[in-house]
Amino acid sequence: MSEQTGPFPLETEFLDRLLQDREIDLYQVSIRELTRLVAELVDHFGVEYLRFEFGIPGLPPPAIGPEAEIQLLQDYPQTPATYPPFDGVPRLKQATARFIKQFTDIDVLPENCIPTVGAMHGGFIAQSIAGRRIEGADTILYLDPGFPVNKLQTQFLGLKAESIDIYDYRGQELIAEIERRFATGKIGGLLWSSPNNPSWVCLKDEELAGIGRLLTDYDVIGIEDAAYFGMDFRQDYGLPGKPPFVPTIANHTDNYLMVLSSSKIFSYAGQRVAVSVISPKLMHRRYPYLRKFHNTDLFGHAFVHGGIYTTTAGVPQTAQHALAALYEAASDGSYNFLERVRVYGDRARRMKQLFLSNGFELVYAEDMGEPIADGFYFTVIRPGMTGRELLYQMLLFGLAGLPLRTTGTRREGIRICVSLIRDDQLEELALRLAALDEQLQGAPRATPDNVS
Amino acid sequence: MSEQTGPFPLETEFLDRLLQDREIDLYQVSIRELTRLVAELVDHFGVEYLRFEFGIPGLPPPAIGPEAEIQLLQDYPQTPATYPPFDGVPRLKQATARFIKQFTDIDVLPENCIPTVGAMHGGFIAQSIAGRRIEGADTILYLDPGFPVNKLQTQFLGLKAESIDIYDYRGQELIAEIERRFATGKIGGLLWSSPNNPSWVCLKDEELAGIGRLLTDYDVIGIEDAAYFGMDFRQDYGLPGKPPFVPTIANHTDNYLMVLSSSKIFSYAGQRVAVSVISPKLMHRRYPYLRKFHNTDLFGHAFVHGGIYTTTAGVPQTAQHALAALYEAASDGSYNFLERVRVYGDRARRMKQLFLSNGFELVYAEDMGEPIADGFYFTVIRPGMTGRELLYQMLLFGLAGLPLRTTGTRREGIRICVSLIRDDQLEELALRLAALDEQLQGAPRATPDNVS
Repeated sequence: MSEQTGPFPLETEFLDRLLQDREIDLYQVSIRELTRLVAELVDHFGVEYLRFEFGIPGLPPPAIGPEAEIQLLQDYPQTPATYPPFDGVPRLKQATARFIKQFTDIDVLPENCIPTVGAMHGGFIAQSIAGRRIEGADTILYLDPGFPVNKLQTQFLGLKAESIDIYDYRGQELIAEIERRFATGKIGGLLWSSPNNPSWVCLKDEELAGIGRLLTDYDVIGIEDAAYFGMDFRQDYGLPGKPPFVPTIANHTDNYLMVLSSSKIFSYAGQRVAVSVISPKLMHRRYPYLRKFHNTDLFGHAFVHGGIYTTTAGVPQTAQHALAALYEAASDGSYNFLERVRVYGDRARRMKQLFLSNGFELVYAEDMGEPIADGFYFTVIRPGMTGRELLYQMLLFGLAGLPLRTTGTRREGIRICVSLIRDDQLEELALRLAALDEQLQGAPRATPDNVS
Repeated sequence: MSEQTGPFPLETEFLDRLLQDREIDLYQVSIRELTRLVAELVDHFGVEYLRFEFGIPGLPPPAIGPEAEIQLLQDYPQTPATYPPFDGVPRLKQATARFIKQFTDIDVLPENCIPTVGAMHGGFIAQSIAGRRIEGADTILYLDPGFPVNKLQTQFLGLKAESIDIYDYRGQELIAEIERRFATGKIGGLLWSSPNNPSWVCLKDEELAGIGRLLTDYDVIGIEDAAYFGMDFRQDYGLPGKPPFVPTIANHTDNYLMVLSSSKIFSYAGQRVAVSVISPKLMHRRYPYLRKFHNTDLFGHAFVHGGIYTTTAGVPQTAQHALAALYEAASDGSYNFLERVRVYGDRARRMKQLFLSNGFELVYAEDMGEPIADGFYFTVIRPGMTGRELLYQMLLFGLAGLPLRTTGTRREGIRICVSLIRDDQLEELALRLAALDEQLQGAPRATPDNVS
């Protein structure tokens, strides 16, 4: 095997020196540090890395988005002179409400749909309000593992963070543990993504029902990060107006705020546009303590006037029309957005197979008794190794991934994002994994022929 | 006169009822509430209002911006799929550094120029860092009057605000008062705009020099809101690379952060793109207390990674290219941006004349002995009236403006923004002002013939 793997494993001296000079701990390394590290390894050794560390779209955007922006800039060239409405362009608000109805069967009004500068912006404002409604309820509870930057937002806002690992708790045990935390009165918001980044765990409807009941009973705000909306490819959620509908907490409580994103489902990460959907009832609820930070006691007004206005004074005009056009096409059925991103699931299935046949295991392998779904991410480890040790070895074999420790779990492992890997790289992936396996185990396990 | 003024004054009953139903105090009314109020008056009475309340551009954007965006969307349609670099698109960073050199003669590096989602975003992050570098130095000191939303940002961030009114303090008295506040150790940042919104006061170089010295001595961050960059039309700052250069605090301290905007100088408000320029030395300063909120002790890293990343994960791609193209054209001398916006100054001169010849006075009339410059805003009052009373009367005569109380001064008066008034409306303005004057004084003072 080893003659086919070219330069791998790379010599350790250079990597060791970089890690020491930069004081990098491979448990704690941020994506940014890792990117710089890999760039220097690429430079030094002249090899190509297989990049699993970024959670970024790997598909070109559908033409619908750019075309909508171009049209606006050509037909109404004065648009850039006009401040966007702080609560969003009416077209996008209407398109969002219809999209939500078509794909979740939930009724919301355009006024409940507030455009944001990417989903990050929605999550930031959502946390600010959820954690500053009620004096003392200033903790955001996370269902971990999760997106590390959400916790940086909590920190920016001066709020506290707590964590429940969905590795340890699922089903009724998860509900019981959440209730134990809510009962302290310290929790202002509960934040999760489903499908989950990085484990691709999808919460079951019975779990969402239990969580919804607790959100209502304890008046905690459910912040549903819907970055991977509908991307549980075990179901076909792609037909507008027809079941099955994308599961959401909105079926189970009025205390929800759904943070939609355009980065993954529409590959529209670059124009920073998204929408947060606030429950129609929550929108008009009053929390006197909110005045202290957001100058109003009304939840919806705090989001728009106390949140959007004060941070960015609205969302870029033409990007709002791009997203509106994408929602419209999806709702009409003229653009099947889930069909397009299904490629990630197919690729995940093949990549997982390669990892598993070369001595790796999945960290989050099960989804309440079922095998974990194939999607944008999966999580790997080798028995007996720490995530730090494994990432170190992977780097020597031209493979980069994100250590799970940064995602809020104590589990050892590495997050693998499939988005940037091309079909023509799978053979190379098989070779490197086999060589790595040989190095670590002393025996080859897989060849490119294993790729199906 | 009065037969020419059509329906004015409007009957008071409808306005009184609206004010009562909405619990609106015309001292405190926000622009948003005022807009809604005027919309209902327009609807009810079927009259057109002259709108002075918005501080928004009234010119179409130069074609340079939309053209740059269209080109990118056509030539590189994959751009929207790519996350922007968190510290900004290199082209815009380079164009900003050159623009700053050409128009202020200050040297900064591209790395010091961080794109933001509008200037609002820059001010928000700037305050967050300035007020959370040093434990206890958590107050933002404002040179008032000012833009009300900056104080909502302070509130969002859980920081404290203090105010010095430039009506009461100028020159050495201003410096002495600032030093008195800095000496408490509680001030983290000093925020001002020059030209000032709403008074159009321009700080003198001797004032900037004094402020710069204090910022350095007391380690306070100067946040220079440069929304009206170069728009003191008494000077011609429009020639790149040639004196006179736009005055800036950057000549007098390393403790500065300049918040540039594209909304007014380029009429590019709608795409929410701007740049904050951090002093090269400040960029690399370390403040250990910053870690608590921004996860790093490095000022520049806190801005980018702890600020931009956590709030919006970057600035829309194509809008960054639009602003880069505008800076490039201005720096080349192919687009004289100040010539284009000079129309605001000419209009202000004519509008002021109408107000003054109809019994109004300027609130901020002087700029250290000189008459106040003509620009985007001016401030008016009538002797013996409060701002609340005056706005009430103006509304009955089809005139809308912003009460000065909302801008942080105790002075009575109304902010007049000239941007939305067309030349063909000046005659109507003269008629309404004369009718209002007649109503309040019992005698006409001006006719349309006074308009020069």
